[in-house]
Amino acid sequence: MDSRRTRPVEIRRIRGRDDDVADDLVAIEEPLEIRLGFRDGDDRGERSVSITMRTPGNDDELAVGFLYAEGLLQSADQVVEVWHRSPPVPGDDELRNVIRVDLGDDVKVEFDRLERHFYTTSSCGVCGKASLEALNAQSQYAAALAASDFRISRGVVVALGAGLVSEQEVFGETGGLHASGLFDATGNFSIVREDVGRHNAMDKLVGRLFLDNALPSTDHGILVSGRTSFELVQKVAMAGVPMLAAVGAPSSLAVDVAREFGITLIGFLRDGRFNVYSGADRIGA
Amino acid sequence: MDSRRTRPVEIRRIRGRDDDVADDLVAIEEPLEIRLGFRDGDDRGERSVSITMRTPGNDDELAVGFLYAEGLLQSADQVVEVWHRSPPVPGDDELRNVIRVDLGDDVKVEFDRLERHFYTTSSCGVCGKASLEALNAQSQYAAALAASDFRISRGVVVALGAGLVSEQEVFGETGGLHASGLFDATGNFSIVREDVGRHNAMDKLVGRLFLDNALPSTDHGILVSGRTSFELVQKVAMAGVPMLAAVGAPSSLAVDVAREFGITLIGFLRDGRFNVYSGADRIGA
Repeated sequence: MDSRRTRPVEIRRIRGRDDDVADDLVAIEEPLEIRLGFRDGDDRGERSVSITMRTPGNDDELAVGFLYAEGLLQSADQVVEVWHRSPPVPGDDELRNVIRVDLGDDVKVEFDRLERHFYTTSSCGVCGKASLEALNAQSQYAAALAASDFRISRGVVVALGAGLVSEQEVFGETGGLHASGLFDATGNFSIVREDVGRHNAMDKLVGRLFLDNALPSTDHGILVSGRTSFELVQKVAMAGVPMLAAVGAPSSLAVDVAREFGITLIGFLRDGRFNVYSGADRIGA
Repeated sequence: MDSRRTRPVEIRRIRGRDDDVADDLVAIEEPLEIRLGFRDGDDRGERSVSITMRTPGNDDELAVGFLYAEGLLQSADQVVEVWHRSPPVPGDDELRNVIRVDLGDDVKVEFDRLERHFYTTSSCGVCGKASLEALNAQSQYAAALAASDFRISRGVVVALGAGLVSEQEVFGETGGLHASGLFDATGNFSIVREDVGRHNAMDKLVGRLFLDNALPSTDHGILVSGRTSFELVQKVAMAGVPMLAAVGAPSSLAVDVAREFGITLIGFLRDGRFNVYSGADRIGA
């Protein structure tokens, strides 16, 4: 599958007054349609729930991770099979862009959730607070997060950045992929996923944990290569992971979600330094 | 409005063995619901078309820029009024999170476009090529792009990065905002927009051009702070802008769209160097 994550392109490189023509690798971006298969009366129904631009690879994880973050799935035993619904794209034997998640006959799908991803409340209308309340209503691991005794030393935190880069397979070739990596208290990465979309990299990682019945993952943290937004912290909260570290800056709502769920939120992790926006008690000397 | 784009938060700063508690600024992220007002028989209808997480400010530009990129709007004379539909969020007099774009009575809205953002073709099913074909069918400025004689020297390109950072109002405070800036052949920035979401920063910029009746903008380029994806190049193609430069890497589909529309695509613009992925003939000595 690795060969399908990058593609050579001919470029012109400009270096001061010099320039030349060179071959470069770019990360592949292709649409993935996610469909659900489910019991519909006496028959099997099928419904398209999302199309996302992603880097091919780990499509099964991406599909279930997305559905889990949206609140449509709760546990791995609800999933019977995940399979590529379409034949390969013409001219590319390895590329399949439609994936289907088949659910057990007794699983009831709340399709409405897809439309009310952000909620309106009578108290504030549309606002960040309403988004927080919606997430609270949806998360099954708030208590597990609060009870997590995950701790990590500042020295291990500082070393995380270099650890993630060394685990990234494609980034080194293209410089163009976001990464999400799951680490333990010693800073060891057990799962690293890459994608042109940072939310996809996170969905793939959480999807892997979901398929492995490893949620909540209260004795791990996740490091992401970019910035942190509401959406990313929301996915971490849904996964029951008590720490999110990022190379970049957090948004206001990322900080709010982290504080609400007792998640340790680290930002600007670079050059031996970092900022802690929430849950500093998990960082040891 | 500036005061509503950042918020102070108390953080713990870790610097090697030292740490202290400090006040930091984070970029505000809040949901914005975009609604369309339109003629529905003899009445006025209203329909919610999108909720996006954005940094408050230039909401009118964001709304029309989004609708334009989705193919729901074609020209500024279709828009009668853009107004905040909701009162301020309780506890925050300056924050309004629902905006409505009112269309003229003779404007017909193709709501279907919102659902078929990516198209399926009989030839390949769901694929990047189908996305390209859909964009081709939708763009009104393909000929204008091909005919553009916009040229820029390599020295001006190299200086663009520093120029954008100096124009960013909020980035310097938070390090957490993506930017899109419109530049001319001398490297002068006339419009710069910032947002926690990079697609929002682009929508705000294109929305400004749309409201000013300045599309297509064939004698300008756009610089973005991050990486380039299908979505970003698509918005640039729709705006009839012949050059997109980025500090980060492009994806495969970003390159494909740029080549299809004759857009000059620049990546890895940093440290006096850059790569040209498409349309190198617009770069002078």
